[in-house]
Amino acid sequence: MTGCSDLSSVWEELVRDGGRIVYLVLDGAGGLRDRTTGKTALEMARTPNLDRIMRQSACGLLELVGPGITPGSGPGHLALFGYDPLHYRLGRGVLSALGIDFDLREGDVAARVNFATVDDAGRITDRRAGRLSSETNRRLCDQLRKAVQLDFDGTWFLETVAEHRAVLVLRGKGVADEIRDTDPQATGVPPRAPQARTDAAQPTAELVRAFVNQAHDVLADEAPANAVLLRGFQRHAPLPSLQERFGLRGLCVAQYPMYRGLSRLLGFEVADAPHSLDASFDLLARRYGEGHDFCFLHVKGTDRCGEDGDFQGKVAVIEDTDRRLSDLLDLQPDVLVVTADHSTPAAMAAHSWHPVPVLIHAASARADGISHFDEYACRGGGLGLRPGLHLMGLALAHAGRLNKFGA
Amino acid sequence: MTGCSDLSSVWEELVRDGGRIVYLVLDGAGGLRDRTTGKTALEMARTPNLDRIMRQSACGLLELVGPGITPGSGPGHLALFGYDPLHYRLGRGVLSALGIDFDLREGDVAARVNFATVDDAGRITDRRAGRLSSETNRRLCDQLRKAVQLDFDGTWFLETVAEHRAVLVLRGKGVADEIRDTDPQATGVPPRAPQARTDAAQPTAELVRAFVNQAHDVLADEAPANAVLLRGFQRHAPLPSLQERFGLRGLCVAQYPMYRGLSRLLGFEVADAPHSLDASFDLLARRYGEGHDFCFLHVKGTDRCGEDGDFQGKVAVIEDTDRRLSDLLDLQPDVLVVTADHSTPAAMAAHSWHPVPVLIHAASARADGISHFDEYACRGGGLGLRPGLHLMGLALAHAGRLNKFGA
Repeated sequence: MTGCSDLSSVWEELVRDGGRIVYLVLDGAGGLRDRTTGKTALEMARTPNLDRIMRQSACGLLELVGPGITPGSGPGHLALFGYDPLHYRLGRGVLSALGIDFDLREGDVAARVNFATVDDAGRITDRRAGRLSSETNRRLCDQLRKAVQLDFDGTWFLETVAEHRAVLVLRGKGVADEIRDTDPQATGVPPRAPQARTDAAQPTAELVRAFVNQAHDVLADEAPANAVLLRGFQRHAPLPSLQERFGLRGLCVAQYPMYRGLSRLLGFEVADAPHSLDASFDLLARRYGEGHDFCFLHVKGTDRCGEDGDFQGKVAVIEDTDRRLSDLLDLQPDVLVVTADHSTPAAMAAHSWHPVPVLIHAASARADGISHFDEYACRGGGLGLRPGLHLMGLALAHAGRLNKFGA
Repeated sequence: MTGCSDLSSVWEELVRDGGRIVYLVLDGAGGLRDRTTGKTALEMARTPNLDRIMRQSACGLLELVGPGITPGSGPGHLALFGYDPLHYRLGRGVLSALGIDFDLREGDVAARVNFATVDDAGRITDRRAGRLSSETNRRLCDQLRKAVQLDFDGTWFLETVAEHRAVLVLRGKGVADEIRDTDPQATGVPPRAPQARTDAAQPTAELVRAFVNQAHDVLADEAPANAVLLRGFQRHAPLPSLQERFGLRGLCVAQYPMYRGLSRLLGFEVADAPHSLDASFDLLARRYGEGHDFCFLHVKGTDRCGEDGDFQGKVAVIEDTDRRLSDLLDLQPDVLVVTADHSTPAAMAAHSWHPVPVLIHAASARADGISHFDEYACRGGGLGLRPGLHLMGLALAHAGRLNKFGA
């Protein structure tokens, strides 16, 4: 049931040119049954268009990363795109940079930054500086960019993410990522001094030490945001692209930077951020004519409502999405996949490990004749319960993009 | 559908503190449909309490070790506890020692001993010496302990297991386990001479040769038990504990030494052997207050009846267990798992490879609404058919003990 990393390399061997694939990913759409209604959001939603294509689709359940493993948005999508998330690890620093659409380059070292509060004795009292506003965050980042002087053969960037979160990026010859977190992830203790895990990382550790010390001088009077905590240092090594691996020229249509950043990482062409769900569908319809092999349309609302514990809101987003489904069918992709990158049960108000439903609509699909798209109906589907990693192989096959294995 | 051995290491990365888990393991509970009743023992059993919790539980089937692989009790339980049985191999010698509650130490070399019958020409005529009584076995072990002199810097133990089976343990500096079996596992041929597989094992091979030769002198007039056959030499290396790996302080409540031994091997606290099924439930209820994170209650009767081909007896044990199930629910564990370590169909009177039903009862369980706990009803469960190894990851997740994977 786990994605074994050698599976996707077999698809790479067999790849040939073929039809067009569209992924409609409803972020966090999977869930649990609601106490009052006794249904999951997907069971509850009136989805006439999904119901119609379900009858001609193969369906089942995907366990995105592994049993009991709750996927972050990064790993969940990597699995859907055919990248074993246990093999391709994305650090917090890199994900933070991707999450703000930062143009990360090969060799850049990124780290997640928290603005935090320390007391007179230098002990951390709040690791999130009272979740300060993003505006304050931007002002402080400006100040630091102006005041801090780092003496090395390269450049550095400090960018606001949101609230107390920012990202530090070091770009230059020989910057290394073997740096311990300065964030002890606890209060009542001082931040840790930046330390190198290897000799090669000593100069970078010096650099980080200089940044932290100067930052603390600049922030001295900025309580509650009078300190910075760094964690998740990672050197950015580009992943093999979707085109290199599977011969797919990808197009990403997503409102949120994190998903655009991840798609860029995999070599997708990334469309400008649409401002709404409807705008997303319109944008895909407009760009579809450009002939990309693989189009990824991301719907964030399902996850956002799940995180907020808003069951009815989640139902509404699913129904809004269903209304636009016919627009996707009008594009007549050879393969249309509808699924999610993980569950986000409103009852848990958080991501969860529960498997998500998946449908594959294609001429070669072994249609299950199941009439609704949800976590329960799809238990009976012919795709069974499988690792999220399997999806890409099935999508490629239904698009006629995989040669026979062996003579 | 294969259990990738690196999965459990991902759980290790993600482990945090959380709720309490109870495993109720009905040994060998899985089975086949009985010719006369047309039902499996689980289908046949009246289990009102199991039926009740099934409606609020996620269920499915576990293939403990792998397709077609019939698990011994050791591997079956290792899988349930999150230890890949294909990776963590327990030799027959070590298992025999564990099976009699022998306090095996790191570095001990254990081997399985059979009392056997050889003819005047020294050829084996019966590898089990007519399945001599355990009493006789004990008498012969006493004699051998007194008479045999092994000259080495250490101590040795010879302990009765049951009937014709005993275990030899060598404890001392440099004892090695690269020793070939002396048991040819055939009759009409003489026992093999103990041979070392490596130079380092030569001294140990000498030691074993001395043991065998002296034993045969002592047993010369003890026909049918006039010879010993040794196999499964294994050096005992402790396994990483359940606490090290998953942060779980375990408690084992089991009547049979084999299960207590295995639990001790994994660092569980092991309660004194209860004398009955009811005593097992009472004991767990009494010890539960001590706040262990993971409680393992083992029911042996289902397997024993299966091995005896006693279908009705197996049904009765399942019903007796069901009567006490409410006692487990009264403890209000965050996660209650009911399953088996393998199938033991009465029709086969032996362990088998057939998948076993499993239920997970927890607040976050995606309830399947299936109303009976058996091999057939659980096919429709949302957990699907999965490797036994997956269970621990799911149990940890439902107990809130796994962090999100990736940002």
